[in-house]
Amino acid sequence: MIVQAGIRITEEEKNKIDVVDFGLSHLEIEGVQVLTLVQTERISVKVLVLFHNQTEPEHWHPPVGNDPGKEETIRVVSGTVFFYVQGENTFKQGFLVKGKEKYYTLMHEIILRPGDQITFQPGEKHWFQARDEGAVMYSFSSVARDALDQFTDPNIVRIVKVVD
Amino acid sequence: MIVQAGIRITEEEKNKIDVVDFGLSHLEIEGVQVLTLVQTERISVKVLVLFHNQTEPEHWHPPVGNDPGKEETIRVVSGTVFFYVQGENTFKQGFLVKGKEKYYTLMHEIILRPGDQITFQPGEKHWFQARDEGAVMYSFSSVARDALDQFTDPNIVRIVKVVD
Repeated sequence: MIVQAGIRITEEEKNKIDVVDFGLSHLEIEGVQVLTLVQTERISVKVLVLFHNQTEPEHWHPPVGNDPGKEETIRVVSGTVFFYVQGENTFKQGFLVKGKEKYYTLMHEIILRPGDQITFQPGEKHWFQARDEGAVMYSFSSVARDALDQFTDPNIVRIVKVVD
Repeated sequence: MIVQAGIRITEEEKNKIDVVDFGLSHLEIEGVQVLTLVQTERISVKVLVLFHNQTEPEHWHPPVGNDPGKEETIRVVSGTVFFYVQGENTFKQGFLVKGKEKYYTLMHEIILRPGDQITFQPGEKHWFQARDEGAVMYSFSSVARDALDQFTDPNIVRIVKVVD
């Protein structure tokens, strides 16, 4: 999907794509696939992939020490992505994960297509979802400390598995 | 060139591409074209375009206040880019701009192709050049303060013009 989206990556990068199931063990429902392109003490650049109807659970990036928390811009490369943020309930085209409704509290819907982007301030809650064709996105951010991300769903453990 | 390289941009973005001639008034020889995708107080994401045989002059990103200076990763999307950095003289495939030889002091050659990337630490001098087909790159960095960049060539003024 990354290559089909027009992103050129090296063979080495193909071998280091992380599959994140958030410890929920139903990857195809709640999960995300991540290729980290840049990861330093100051910035992070990732390619995010969502499969057909896959949802990244509601979360936010908390302060860490002197850092106010991760600031993140997500830019869509391919597919349509349904983002949910604070604001008036305009929920229309998304769907809530069955049995997990209470862990999705944000209902303000923003639909982004290739070339569109959205910026999340530190601490700003969000969740997002792909539909039929899945989606490929860039995530540009200040330093990422994914293990410290906070989730609405208390069952979530931020576990990263590396695909062979 | 940006669209041909597979990067989807909006109509609004097409209208805000900066053409940078560094005040030297020979854009096609020394210059760069820049589309800023993200510019905050913490991070910067740009698309850089070099035309056929166009050279970005030797420069570095100095400290600014409490900031040690811009840390930058350049990732090639299309074309071949010849980078020159500190190190042993391995100059082979590049060329020096005529009459400007003394303003290009770095001769360690690194050749990057699509999917390859290089990271410059704050203060680390570099220059780069495209050849036959030109090149399109991403620049991922900590906050950019381009007006404060330092150049080996004292004739350079960091002037930005916006294309209509």
